[in-house]
Amino acid sequence: MTDSTPIAPQPFLDACAAAIGAQHVLTDAHDTAPYLADWRRRYQGAAVAVLCPATTREVAAVVKLAHEHRVALVPQGGNTGLAGGATPDASGKAAVLSLRRLNRVREIDAHNNTITVEAGVILSEIQARAKEADRLFPLSLAAEGSCTIGGNLSTNAGGTGVLRYGTTRELCLGLEVVTPQGDIWDGLRGLRKDNTGYDLRDLFIGAEGTLGVITAAVMKLHPQPAARVTALAALGSAHAALDFLALAQRYAGALLTGFELMSDFCMQLVGRHFPQLRYPFAGHHAQVVLLELSDNESEEHARALFERLMEEALEQGLVEDAVVAESLAQSQAFWNIREHIPLAQAQEGLNIKHDIGVPISRIGRFIEETDAEIARAVPGARMVTFGHLGDGNLHYNVQAPEGGDPRRFLAEHEKTLNRIVYDSVNRHRGTISAEHGLGQLKIDENAHYKSEVELALMRAIKTALDPLNLMNPGKVLHGPKEQEP
Amino acid sequence: MTDSTPIAPQPFLDACAAAIGAQHVLTDAHDTAPYLADWRRRYQGAAVAVLCPATTREVAAVVKLAHEHRVALVPQGGNTGLAGGATPDASGKAAVLSLRRLNRVREIDAHNNTITVEAGVILSEIQARAKEADRLFPLSLAAEGSCTIGGNLSTNAGGTGVLRYGTTRELCLGLEVVTPQGDIWDGLRGLRKDNTGYDLRDLFIGAEGTLGVITAAVMKLHPQPAARVTALAALGSAHAALDFLALAQRYAGALLTGFELMSDFCMQLVGRHFPQLRYPFAGHHAQVVLLELSDNESEEHARALFERLMEEALEQGLVEDAVVAESLAQSQAFWNIREHIPLAQAQEGLNIKHDIGVPISRIGRFIEETDAEIARAVPGARMVTFGHLGDGNLHYNVQAPEGGDPRRFLAEHEKTLNRIVYDSVNRHRGTISAEHGLGQLKIDENAHYKSEVELALMRAIKTALDPLNLMNPGKVLHGPKEQEP
Repeated sequence: MTDSTPIAPQPFLDACAAAIGAQHVLTDAHDTAPYLADWRRRYQGAAVAVLCPATTREVAAVVKLAHEHRVALVPQGGNTGLAGGATPDASGKAAVLSLRRLNRVREIDAHNNTITVEAGVILSEIQARAKEADRLFPLSLAAEGSCTIGGNLSTNAGGTGVLRYGTTRELCLGLEVVTPQGDIWDGLRGLRKDNTGYDLRDLFIGAEGTLGVITAAVMKLHPQPAARVTALAALGSAHAALDFLALAQRYAGALLTGFELMSDFCMQLVGRHFPQLRYPFAGHHAQVVLLELSDNESEEHARALFERLMEEALEQGLVEDAVVAESLAQSQAFWNIREHIPLAQAQEGLNIKHDIGVPISRIGRFIEETDAEIARAVPGARMVTFGHLGDGNLHYNVQAPEGGDPRRFLAEHEKTLNRIVYDSVNRHRGTISAEHGLGQLKIDENAHYKSEVELALMRAIKTALDPLNLMNPGKVLHGPKEQEP
Repeated sequence: MTDSTPIAPQPFLDACAAAIGAQHVLTDAHDTAPYLADWRRRYQGAAVAVLCPATTREVAAVVKLAHEHRVALVPQGGNTGLAGGATPDASGKAAVLSLRRLNRVREIDAHNNTITVEAGVILSEIQARAKEADRLFPLSLAAEGSCTIGGNLSTNAGGTGVLRYGTTRELCLGLEVVTPQGDIWDGLRGLRKDNTGYDLRDLFIGAEGTLGVITAAVMKLHPQPAARVTALAALGSAHAALDFLALAQRYAGALLTGFELMSDFCMQLVGRHFPQLRYPFAGHHAQVVLLELSDNESEEHARALFERLMEEALEQGLVEDAVVAESLAQSQAFWNIREHIPLAQAQEGLNIKHDIGVPISRIGRFIEETDAEIARAVPGARMVTFGHLGDGNLHYNVQAPEGGDPRRFLAEHEKTLNRIVYDSVNRHRGTISAEHGLGQLKIDENAHYKSEVELALMRAIKTALDPLNLMNPGKVLHGPKEQEP
């Protein structure tokens, strides 16, 4: 935050009240509380106010006022982020800018396969509206019932559909953005191709609100598949899973919409805490893979394709056992196992989470090497390894040794284990944040691993667009006046 | 170009010779000529020298020297661009920086579905190397035998595979770039997901060398489809083609890799100048669509899918006639018709080309309205309308009236017709350059149609990264000291 931030912000708040209505300028502690802590309760911030404009023009008015009064703004959507990117710092000098009231679906254009939505529209609402138009909006993640598309865009959210449909970035064709000076950039284009200058769209996507405020977007829709079918395959190693992925892609191409890895210990945890979710195989296997096909023809076609794939994989010795879902209910049951891993892990106790990515070809070696280092550093530490193998993205989490005290485990080992994991990621040319962003959680780690050239390019862009460092300061990268690590 | 560019560049040339070898600093007119005019011969430039480094380090050394000596650089790949983006201006003060000697394929990682290539590798070489590894590199365009991947990236090239695989941007995972100051940014990541800061990659892609020099890239590979099959459908209007596209996408989903529109006059031109290419239908139809399926299973499966689709489309009255290719040779013959349109058009005489894009849903209305305006302005002008309908991208070209003098037609009507077409594009929220970029050809038109907010954002970024305006000045946007239109 800049030094010029006013201690007495009343003139700013009065001007905001005049611009958007006094009832939308929240200052009462009871009203502001839900906006000041993150969803995981890792961060507790403070703010001069929570501002709730309802339209792009109102957002522009508020940003212009903040610029005049030198008040920092923290844009916030559904407040479901996992890296503290939408939580203000504890100084109480910034204002939270909530986008939730910008919640209109502006247009659905089925022939163009696009939907134009405001930043505050809930993700599941977009999915539902697409379905009504016989289209698919494929972005899907755990928080879809409460996260907003503005937050998805600002963090370039991933989720379970990335293998086929890409991240949020790849689902976006155009943006409307309020710049740090309060101007409105109308980049709401519904075009598949446009080569008329710098790619501003992708610069604002994933910038976590540090370069401006996304107020609306044109998102891509896809045809609804005729059927979705899942299968589970049991494998002897993560290496085998890689060969199996290549085989599945050759058989299914773009029909393959899911390829999720789950280690045996993940399966054990789910069995322990959710015994009603039946383990699908007779014996134990080092790894289980969940596959999903989204078929344009029929359920029968998808199942027949799976049968041929599994036959070949068994014959090649890649797969030890396999089961293809025979009904929609069974397909859902397989996804349920996958989705209960984080819940089972939480039941088992506090743990250290890593949302990492490496080139897909290196996943086997990454797991082997890093597991071994962790075992040496903290004997008995239990690895909860699962995730989007098809995207090279693992949730590589570490649980205290059996019977150990989770809190003491975290206090004693979190720093050491983070260093081991991120150093290994770095050796394998991976990323320390594959889908959750940096926020305030990983800002120092990122500064540690990025090259000085890259950090300098990022700083040059930040300074060019937001020279006063008023847009979400203290997130993504440190401002010129903030403490570097 | 900045005013500080030296008139006597000998010290710069001597330093370059020391850095990359005297034989790679071309100054002789005979040697430099091929680098100083664009492929379409619209622009003739001049240069102090053509510099041909062989490695990223040599590029960095040359750029650092240019920065010290205040010499502007014009990066150039295969010199096949259609907008003059790689041609220096006539002042003779800039140096051309040819990337052709950076021509190594650094790595193929089949398990990661990536290929790492230097900027000067020819596109068809990448296609061939991917095929050897049983993978597909889907970028494909007319100049593929001589264009380079660095040029494809810098102009975000499109081509015939965009419907399924996206533009060059969507095929790129990571970049290596030499900044305007001569630093090397190693962003050569082979990751599907990475949320650790601003999207520098997409900022350099499509920047036409005005923000730095792309020296290498990690490109995505896809599984090789088992079969590709094409079909032709005859339709009564462009409106019907839109409904047909939606139907085809519902039937085929991501298997649909091509959907090209060709007006009846295009077919007549091909018939006139290439009579050996057989017109496939009995009668005439307002529009013909070429469809391509890339199937993971087999040719039979693709043909069966086409048969079902065509049956339904005929039944719904969307399609008037249809023919599915019965062999690879026939599939190729159908593509041949499409690919001969630009050649037939050239045979017919000079014409006015527009590489425009609009939302797919508006294509029908765009054609109707704009055709009518053109007919009013220049009675008898003949429209050659074809292109990538599935991407909303038309080559909307205007030919002189039958028997008219093409040169006089251009001299008299080019400005008027451009204004009509681009105004119409603008009303339909489209783009004046869908896949060819701006270069120097459309820099003024772009400044005319873009909002002041967007131009200001672009300028802020340009100034932040290249404050001396030494990287490809006079392209994409005007520098602070250059003449605005």
